Amino acid sequence: MSRLKPMDHALCEAEKASTQNEVPVGAVIVKVSTGKILVSSHNEMVQRNDPTAHAELLAIQKACRLLGQGRLDDCDIYVTLEPCPMCAQAISFARFRRLYFGAYDPKGGGVDHGAHVFRASSCHYKPEIIGGLNEEKCRALLVDFFQKIRGTAS
Amino acid sequence: MSRLKPMDHALCEAEKASTQNEVPVGAVIVKVSTGKILVSSHNEMVQRNDPTAHAELLAIQKACRLLGQGRLDDCDIYVTLEPCPMCAQAISFARFRRLYFGAYDPKGGGVDHGAHVFRASSCHYKPEIIGGLNEEKCRALLVDFFQKIRGTAS
Repeated sequence: MSRLKPMDHALCEAEKASTQNEVPVGAVIVKVSTGKILVSSHNEMVQRNDPTAHAELLAIQKACRLLGQGRLDDCDIYVTLEPCPMCAQAISFARFRRLYFGAYDPKGGGVDHGAHVFRASSCHYKPEIIGGLNEEKCRALLVDFFQKIRGTAS
Repeated sequence: MSRLKPMDHALCEAEKASTQNEVPVGAVIVKVSTGKILVSSHNEMVQRNDPTAHAELLAIQKACRLLGQGRLDDCDIYVTLEPCPMCAQAISFARFRRLYFGAYDPKGGGVDHGAHVFRASSCHYKPEIIGGLNEEKCRALLVDFFQKIRGTAS
């Protein structure tokens, strides 16, 4: 499966979030050995009243439930936005083979910015990381969302 | 209420975790305006097959459900171990007034060690932080647990 297919799917999840007044971030987990999408999710912080309900955490929790195991080492995770420090550390704990993300997040990202979670001595497992996949589309969705919220959209 | 009472309660939670073969970490959330314990929890990563099921995350999720809100700014959180980067960022997102923790964690902690989540530019809210509360008891519980696991206990 092309790497773009799961990222397109993650983008659909992000769009779904947007229609629910959630910051449009989507995540998809692919099982490497089958090449199939295992689970997908989007931000649900507003609807769940839960600041931990980020797309990545929800996807990890779903995948673990589905597989009955806490290690996702036969899996890759695709996220439309650079994970925050909370999600980056969860991705490390879950032992993903690879992390793909779309837009970079200089303000809140914890992979290539800020806490740099995977570079810290508190991190004991680092997946392969590919940032900037389908970056433009992923960022455009976020920019549109915040423009609409601020009433500056045409 | 004394600060030791919620930490004692968190220690009981940690002990409960230990009997369930979970790394003994407990967390308690106190509502500041009432001075009462709102929720408590312990690690459940093994029993849930979920690497995100740390005591702190479970407590935050419970408290948000109970209060029907995602902001816990009228709350303090007590944890027996220095939070990891995942939990530290979740504590920031939840806007706790104060974080109290017991034992320091030089290997995996993300507050005073490693990723130093609250000092990073990706962190937009920092609670007041008091580390080393009832440190000896909190650490002893962890040391005992790992000694038993490794078969080096007397």
